[in-house]
Amino acid sequence: MQRIRTTQIGEHVGERVKLAGWVHQLRELGKINFLLVRDGYGVVQAMTQDADRLTALRDLQNETVVEIEGDVVAEPQAPGGLELHDIAVQVITPVTETVPVALNKPVVNVTLDTFLNHATVGLRHPRRRALFRISARVMAAFREFLTGEGFTEIQSPKLVASSTESGANVFNVNYFGREAFLAQSPQFYKQIMVGVFERVFEVGPVFRAEPHDTTRHVNEYVSLDAEFGFIENHFTVMALLNRLIRHIIARLEEQCAAELKLTDVHLPAIPETIPHIHFRDAQQLIFERHGEDCRGEPDLAPQHERWLGEWARETHGSDFLFVPGYPMVKRPFYTHPDPADPTYSNSFDLLFRGTELVTGGQRLHRYDDYLAALARAKLPAEPFEYYLEAMKYGMPPHGGFAVGLERFTMQLTGLSNVREATLFPRDTHRLTP
Amino acid sequence: MQRIRTTQIGEHVGERVKLAGWVHQLRELGKINFLLVRDGYGVVQAMTQDADRLTALRDLQNETVVEIEGDVVAEPQAPGGLELHDIAVQVITPVTETVPVALNKPVVNVTLDTFLNHATVGLRHPRRRALFRISARVMAAFREFLTGEGFTEIQSPKLVASSTESGANVFNVNYFGREAFLAQSPQFYKQIMVGVFERVFEVGPVFRAEPHDTTRHVNEYVSLDAEFGFIENHFTVMALLNRLIRHIIARLEEQCAAELKLTDVHLPAIPETIPHIHFRDAQQLIFERHGEDCRGEPDLAPQHERWLGEWARETHGSDFLFVPGYPMVKRPFYTHPDPADPTYSNSFDLLFRGTELVTGGQRLHRYDDYLAALARAKLPAEPFEYYLEAMKYGMPPHGGFAVGLERFTMQLTGLSNVREATLFPRDTHRLTP
Repeated sequence: MQRIRTTQIGEHVGERVKLAGWVHQLRELGKINFLLVRDGYGVVQAMTQDADRLTALRDLQNETVVEIEGDVVAEPQAPGGLELHDIAVQVITPVTETVPVALNKPVVNVTLDTFLNHATVGLRHPRRRALFRISARVMAAFREFLTGEGFTEIQSPKLVASSTESGANVFNVNYFGREAFLAQSPQFYKQIMVGVFERVFEVGPVFRAEPHDTTRHVNEYVSLDAEFGFIENHFTVMALLNRLIRHIIARLEEQCAAELKLTDVHLPAIPETIPHIHFRDAQQLIFERHGEDCRGEPDLAPQHERWLGEWARETHGSDFLFVPGYPMVKRPFYTHPDPADPTYSNSFDLLFRGTELVTGGQRLHRYDDYLAALARAKLPAEPFEYYLEAMKYGMPPHGGFAVGLERFTMQLTGLSNVREATLFPRDTHRLTP
Repeated sequence: MQRIRTTQIGEHVGERVKLAGWVHQLRELGKINFLLVRDGYGVVQAMTQDADRLTALRDLQNETVVEIEGDVVAEPQAPGGLELHDIAVQVITPVTETVPVALNKPVVNVTLDTFLNHATVGLRHPRRRALFRISARVMAAFREFLTGEGFTEIQSPKLVASSTESGANVFNVNYFGREAFLAQSPQFYKQIMVGVFERVFEVGPVFRAEPHDTTRHVNEYVSLDAEFGFIENHFTVMALLNRLIRHIIARLEEQCAAELKLTDVHLPAIPETIPHIHFRDAQQLIFERHGEDCRGEPDLAPQHERWLGEWARETHGSDFLFVPGYPMVKRPFYTHPDPADPTYSNSFDLLFRGTELVTGGQRLHRYDDYLAALARAKLPAEPFEYYLEAMKYGMPPHGGFAVGLERFTMQLTGLSNVREATLFPRDTHRLTP
């Protein structure tokens, strides 16, 4: 008999089927006994009044790997309305010790630290793994949309000779006796590749040696990067990103119904056109609505972002808000200034439920502008020589953005710590599992 | 007027269109002048008998970024049978220096070293960039097939506390004052995640500190990894890989016609069932056909692989050949032995045109077998504790494989050096661009 998945039993009501998976729970109530078996896709309930049918599991623990045969029967009391009867259970891999994290409770009932210590097993919890199925769908929808828009996927090197933006917060690698660094972002490479393909994207790890532990930072994360040429300005970038986010959310709605239900997630409200408010006007708005005068400051504080998020929700019915026009002083050297007022930039943040989700913008594209910008930032040109070469030989006006995958999952699913949205997080204290 | 791509002009014959791109070539022959403009997708020819139409390009070099308007006219002499007439050219970004690598010759005419030094510009060559479009399609087809087979994408950490297989050939990272390593493969994590999702894949960078420079090795490359549970043995893995490779090749045929033509690539012959020959029988065959007695040796030499490739081609009409049953002594500790003869393994290589392309196999899945295997390999259990925890709490029989993306592109397109199939290669001498 061919094995089927737990999610396929609805197609086999009244038939005898074979399944395989992990013992999720065993409840022996004497006259009636329930066995829950979890496979990679879901959980199925088996019921027997004959305790001998479960003899193979005697003295074994949850997570024992089993094969089970049974008749699929409609049973309104059972989860999903279906149950296996007349079962035969065979052990594939026995487990003899108690699992360190209970996997069959509705929610994980250990501290985050304990969970992360045992993530290799804890991630089997249906609610936890659902987060990472959502995460996988976000990546797939990101690629799908951009490929449809004529973007080409690239894979840029992570071992680099110079840091992307400055020397700070970068990990050092011993590279055959020389010093190398781990790339903080594929920024330079994606810009260079605009000269080749016009439109490129990359999904890959980035490394930030930030020495602070916060609930929103890890030291290695997955960055969803896009960059494209022949734009008018940063509004061209925002328009594409707008359609991309809508596409991702539409795909989650179509493809992740079970995972969204399991994690109690309500997909965000996203209008066809995400509202935008210029950085300067955002500060004025905060002053008028909340009496806090942040006008003239070079950045927004988390509380400011939350207030702006509330405003977007109330006045535009949107969980998303673009804030274009951040001051140049807070942006990296390759940022394109606002031609009308060069103290502000053609860059933006996208706030999602009052927290920064995406940073993007238009970049400089003229070689001379790069030399001037590096001089202004008091950075030497030499470490950026290869990057400047691409600029010297003809780059169109271009821009792009980067989305942190884990942060997107975190905000989408309402987690309070980005580590919960990271399979095996890396922070100043944690390098395993 | 909306800009169109060079590849779209066939839909606009007889119309006036706007394009944008890079000056690929300018030939001023006095009475007749040709301008080739390349965008991210292709090249279009413009013709004018009025030299004044090209005034904007005077004193500028190839790779100047331009916008061009013109009428699309059928012209049998022109590349692609279409030409732009009555043109108007506007400079977007001027280029004033001669490009370091000629981009408009049929093939790149500089040494590999010079090319790599200037790859940020050299990759714009139509033949070079075609390789990386093919590469992008390979990744997409890999993910598409496995997603369709119920696999979930994962992103595992690249910063790790212990090396994957042994302490050799691993890069060291200064991780907040502690020692960390760059992952040589996602092997442990993909196995762990079989316990969560049953079927997983990952596309990401791996790092090998191999101190030798060869034409087949770079120190950072992209690994296409898959792993899945509830297999019978390595033949289950080979069967899935067989269908995967067929899917990738079918997709390339459908989606990469232009790139395959440009790079003179003939797609390989792949029968519905790729032939296989046991390692021991392969050595016997080599002895019988070529008189070289390698029977009893623990590995195949490159010449042996080439002979086997020829044999597969001649007798099976296949460019691919599975060699299952490699001796255990040459395989990593987590390899599952052949139950019938434990000196051989349930692992395999897939040869493509006589060179190893994929390594895979069945892994151990019982906790006690891991402890015994580590002891046999004289490896301490402690650095592998997190990995062993997953094994302790129930793992099904499982296996998988890894394909090097660059090596696949290299062998598919007949390149002689894997660096040509790597966007920005890293080797013992090269850390830029």
